[in-house]
Amino acid sequence: MSMLILDLLGTFFFAVSGSLLAARKKFDVVGSLLLASLVGLGGGVSRDVIIGQVPNAFLQPVYLVPPLLATMLVATRLVRETRVRRPLLLFDAAGLALFCIVGTITAHQAGLHAVSAALLGLTTAVGGGVMRDVVANEVPQVFNPRGVYAIPAMLGSSLTVLTLELGWFGVVAGCLIAVFVFVLRVLSIRLEWHVPLAGGGTIRNDDSR
Amino acid sequence: MSMLILDLLGTFFFAVSGSLLAARKKFDVVGSLLLASLVGLGGGVSRDVIIGQVPNAFLQPVYLVPPLLATMLVATRLVRETRVRRPLLLFDAAGLALFCIVGTITAHQAGLHAVSAALLGLTTAVGGGVMRDVVANEVPQVFNPRGVYAIPAMLGSSLTVLTLELGWFGVVAGCLIAVFVFVLRVLSIRLEWHVPLAGGGTIRNDDSR
Amino acid sequence: MSMLILDLLGTFFFAVSGSLLAARKKFDVVGSLLLASLVGLGGGVSRDVIIGQVPNAFLQPVYLVPPLLATMLVATRLVRETRVRRPLLLFDAAGLALFCIVGTITAHQAGLHAVSAALLGLTTAVGGGVMRDVVANEVPQVFNPRGVYAIPAMLGSSLTVLTLELGWFGVVAGCLIAVFVFVLRVLSIRLEWHVPLAGGGTIRNDDSR
Repeated sequence: MSMLILDLLGTFFFAVSGSLLAARKKFDVVGSLLLASLVGLGGGVSRDVIIGQVPNAFLQPVYLVPPLLATMLVATRLVRETRVRRPLLLFDAAGLALFCIVGTITAHQAGLHAVSAALLGLTTAVGGGVMRDVVANEVPQVFNPRGVYAIPAMLGSSLTVLTLELGWFGVVAGCLIAVFVFVLRVLSIRLEWHVPLAGGGTIRNDDSR
Repeated sequence: MSMLILDLLGTFFFAVSGSLLAARKKFDVVGSLLLASLVGLGGGVSRDVIIGQVPNAFLQPVYLVPPLLATMLVATRLVRETRVRRPLLLFDAAGLALFCIVGTITAHQAGLHAVSAALLGLTTAVGGGVMRDVVANEVPQVFNPRGVYAIPAMLGSSLTVLTLELGWFGVVAGCLIAVFVFVLRVLSIRLEWHVPLAGGGTIRNDDSR
Repeated sequence: MSMLILDLLGTFFFAVSGSLLAARKKFDVVGSLLLASLVGLGGGVSRDVIIGQVPNAFLQPVYLVPPLLATMLVATRLVRETRVRRPLLLFDAAGLALFCIVGTITAHQAGLHAVSAALLGLTTAVGGGVMRDVVANEVPQVFNPRGVYAIPAMLGSSLTVLTLELGWFGVVAGCLIAVFVFVLRVLSIRLEWHVPLAGGGTIRNDDSR
């Protein structure tokens, strides 16, 4: 039950990031709904297909509520992007935080061992956002060397599987992990943390981008 | 049997749209065949994977005929794009019309309930075209705010599932729905219908795009 | 056993191509690891999902070793691209050569008949590279009309299924097919072979691209 709530909440956060991107790209409300659905449901559908289950999103119509809500919030400008505030990044970070936990638990319950469960949790968390950016014809945020994106999700998935294996996982542990992932991701953007580049070397903080 | 014919016909229409896009992007005939296969078979493969079946396209080699035919028609310039005529959009609309019906029926037969079947029908209809545009590095047509794309497919899937549930579905109903979806899509392009933008507001008809 | 080695080796070659592309696009090392994993594991995961198996890559953590190794080799500049040498294309060709064989065998063992097995082998071989290029926001190499890409893989898959059906497949046949596919692909780039364009006509060798 609480898993369903977490999953719907994560779907909602990601869905808002999708609708905000749709607004920035000047898509219409139908495109907004589709992009919100893709980012909100894409990671979980991939996860369920990989572990051989019919995806929840196609079995329970309640999963359509978060994308609908997100589309309405953005179309009515109750949530919107401005030059100074970047709600897209915040909602995306919140989705990331919840999905790395939900994804890992789902994979763990399906019987995958620890490393695979963490890996599938990471895939769930990162997958929807990659699909959002790819279909909107942008380089996925996960590849942006400003800030760290996959590392908080990796840590979140690993902590989830660790606490699950130790029998410590519960509401408190889940909340702590989610807050930890969210704060880490947001801090990394604010403080412009970065890791070395793929081909060696680092970017300088004064590089324009 | 008639389902197989409808499916192959829809595959053919989408495949032609893929080969026409390949021609516009100056890909070669092998790229044309791959793009035609992706758009023609991608939606159905996704649908089958989601409902947990081995995709028809990989079980029945006859599914390779439509992409081969489409590639030949475009390579020999029997079908081609000009500045004034846009066969790509027409073939895409025909594929959309057939696939929202075939996809919904397949999902319904697999035991999904009404809302899920309609949703999966929409996914089948829209999925192949999104894959075509994404791998060709274009913003998917479904996000183009000129004309409506997903709405005709949503209506087609909904009508299909409604007539199926009421026991009214048959050749006549299927043809009527397909024609309705096709005409709606084509009219929306000609008359430049549009729905509100994702971030509120509308585009003006005299905007250049 | 030898299948696992071949699969890991193919994964490694593709993974290096992913990390080299990440370096060229100025992604960071985490992005490099993700892109290496996507290209190395994406084709095989798609293949396993299509035939209804839980993907090996999520069951056996050893599949994470090749992407990790590739990321390290590129980050330490032990493997790197220069203007004159194009290791990306060579590693990609090596991955293509091994994956069209491994993919075909896997599909054949899963009980698909000859044509489907060859088709799925081709999908495995080409799929990872398409995902790599799509998420990095590039037009996939398979669509580049300079050189032939899919044809060597098609021939490799067909030869594999033919020798399997005839009972001639073994280490020697596998090695010969792999070398044949690799050499064909590399020669096609060096000698700038091309096939007719999708819309008819051919490109001229002196076209700039």
